[in-house]
Amino acid sequence: MIRDLTDDEARAALVLKWGQTEPGVIPAWVAEMDYATADVLTDALVDAVRASRTGYPPYESGGELGRAYSEWAQRHVGHTVDPDHVVPVVDVSQGMRLALDVLSEDAPVVLPVPAYPPQLDLAEITGRERVDLVLDPDSERAGIDLDALEAALRDGARTLVLTQPHNPWGRVFTRAELERIRDVVVRYGARVISDEIHAPLVLPGAEHVPYLSLDGTADHAVALVAASKAFNTAGLKCAQLVTGDDATRDRIFAAPMTRNDSWSTLGVVASVAAYDLGDPWLAALIERLDQQRTLLADLLAEHLPDARTRPLEATYLAWLDLRAYGHRDPAATCLNRGKVRLAPGHDYHPGSAGHVRLNIATSPERLTEIVRRMATALSGQSGMMLR
Amino acid sequence: MIRDLTDDEARAALVLKWGQTEPGVIPAWVAEMDYATADVLTDALVDAVRASRTGYPPYESGGELGRAYSEWAQRHVGHTVDPDHVVPVVDVSQGMRLALDVLSEDAPVVLPVPAYPPQLDLAEITGRERVDLVLDPDSERAGIDLDALEAALRDGARTLVLTQPHNPWGRVFTRAELERIRDVVVRYGARVISDEIHAPLVLPGAEHVPYLSLDGTADHAVALVAASKAFNTAGLKCAQLVTGDDATRDRIFAAPMTRNDSWSTLGVVASVAAYDLGDPWLAALIERLDQQRTLLADLLAEHLPDARTRPLEATYLAWLDLRAYGHRDPAATCLNRGKVRLAPGHDYHPGSAGHVRLNIATSPERLTEIVRRMATALSGQSGMMLR
Repeated sequence: MIRDLTDDEARAALVLKWGQTEPGVIPAWVAEMDYATADVLTDALVDAVRASRTGYPPYESGGELGRAYSEWAQRHVGHTVDPDHVVPVVDVSQGMRLALDVLSEDAPVVLPVPAYPPQLDLAEITGRERVDLVLDPDSERAGIDLDALEAALRDGARTLVLTQPHNPWGRVFTRAELERIRDVVVRYGARVISDEIHAPLVLPGAEHVPYLSLDGTADHAVALVAASKAFNTAGLKCAQLVTGDDATRDRIFAAPMTRNDSWSTLGVVASVAAYDLGDPWLAALIERLDQQRTLLADLLAEHLPDARTRPLEATYLAWLDLRAYGHRDPAATCLNRGKVRLAPGHDYHPGSAGHVRLNIATSPERLTEIVRRMATALSGQSGMMLR
Repeated sequence: MIRDLTDDEARAALVLKWGQTEPGVIPAWVAEMDYATADVLTDALVDAVRASRTGYPPYESGGELGRAYSEWAQRHVGHTVDPDHVVPVVDVSQGMRLALDVLSEDAPVVLPVPAYPPQLDLAEITGRERVDLVLDPDSERAGIDLDALEAALRDGARTLVLTQPHNPWGRVFTRAELERIRDVVVRYGARVISDEIHAPLVLPGAEHVPYLSLDGTADHAVALVAASKAFNTAGLKCAQLVTGDDATRDRIFAAPMTRNDSWSTLGVVASVAAYDLGDPWLAALIERLDQQRTLLADLLAEHLPDARTRPLEATYLAWLDLRAYGHRDPAATCLNRGKVRLAPGHDYHPGSAGHVRLNIATSPERLTEIVRRMATALSGQSGMMLR
């Protein structure tokens, strides 16, 4: 059911990941998968295009999109979502910007880092100060530092950007962790913007708990969700902002329409198809990613034994600590000497130099070749000299 | 070549214009056309979807999109555009927001009104004051009041939002008019954001002059252009911001990426197909709209002789002054009593009460029925009583 794209197909399909990577280099940077789109999405999109469904999408919460997401959330994560609390947005980052602009106090924003690079900009473009909660690269487990969170809120911050499952940490926060975060947030009357775009990509062994499914979160949180990461449709531009109550939804719609009217009609079509019809494909995908996760562990043990990783609980993005190999910018080394393009850790936070994010959503053959090339590049003689 | 959608087809295709209008009511509000998508666009989109081209678009100026727009601009409006000065944006309104946020001084924005409603919000969402240049509804010709513009700039405004061809005025500004506007703008060191989304829809008798084609505009202006209005693909989410020089383009890309990374891959595909392959369809469309324009004049003369209009030089959106019929909200009257949905004038500016915007991009039969229904609604007995 999961069909690997050939190199030529991938170059034509994934115009950023492959198309903007030099031929001969294996791309493992952007969060896209080297798999063909699910047939149920392709069919829905072709039908929509043939029916001339290329005009403006409906301007509303709920609708087909709200219904489809609500049913999906019930089925997959046991979360009861009122369909009318589902607001379309163009993508997760713009949805977060919208939530900050419209819902949050004009006060600093707390961001756990390393973080998805566009999140680093959110405070600035909404005119706020950013307060980083820095993950100790040596910590055994990646978690939110509650004392640091509390200190930031005590000092005046009023919004926490929560990413869960976390990219690039690969963590799925437990219910207990989330409840402790909630308790601190509530104590200071702050808000949470919970980026849950990776929720469909929780791997066997972990369980996603939507932040809004916790008691006492409805009035202070929104979640950003999307089918786009799990179904490889980031270019179709439709995510969903989920509110916990009518009042929050109404505040979003009371804002000037130009703050949020850019989602795509075909993005809606793809999302509805993914939520309604995508379960078998998603199950096959999770199975594949689980195999790739195991393969990665084996390959690292064999070829890069000094690479440090934490368990990959969700996403297809492995966060590798390569400091032991002594390269200041291991992604650059792997690109230049190994012809493998990884995402450099310092893009996620300056403190993450020596780390890389490796995208495992490809074929076993490519993943094998990627790790082999990395090993050659990182342990090569000139690499040793840099130590 | 222009295929009229049946009512059922239109309801499935145009999910906002028709889908969010009550059955039995003829929708003539949103700026979308009741025509099937051009085959060249449909084919390009189907091919892209079947090739799994649903991931992120390339992040760059120029590229295929820049080349295609540049060639189109040369061919259609005789404007030489450097392909690398063409920056993708998700839609024209967000492109204008981007230009204000990144390029404009933190100073008031001048907006000629009545204006496309989302433009009314741009000042507020970019944290600026809005200065309206109000078109006298009784003026014979719709133009920019240069004295008022000069006064606004003298008082500190630093950006002019120019819409040309103008929606809802239906005006195509002449080269002489644009040069006079430029001279005032230059005198005060102000910037121009020129919304030229309707440029492909200039009707016989008028000629579009891109603002950036005038001498001395490259360093103070950007244009927002798109294939979406002429090719009915507003839901595919790709417009283009055209800069006049490298420096302006570089300032856009130096801004945090999250300010501008939401355009759609399929929007790019549709735009390139429209610019490269859409000329025959566009020519047929212009012919049809020219016929509809003539038909509208005939219908108004017969059924609504007291409706006042200025010549429709571009767009398929007729701005009708219905004050003579004595209804405070003629769009509401037409909806409630005539089952025709028009865009109410007061949405474009509070001073435009008594006006409506009528979308003529439909079949001759529907347009005939629309005007007949309007006439019945507006001259009905209770209508008379409101006078």
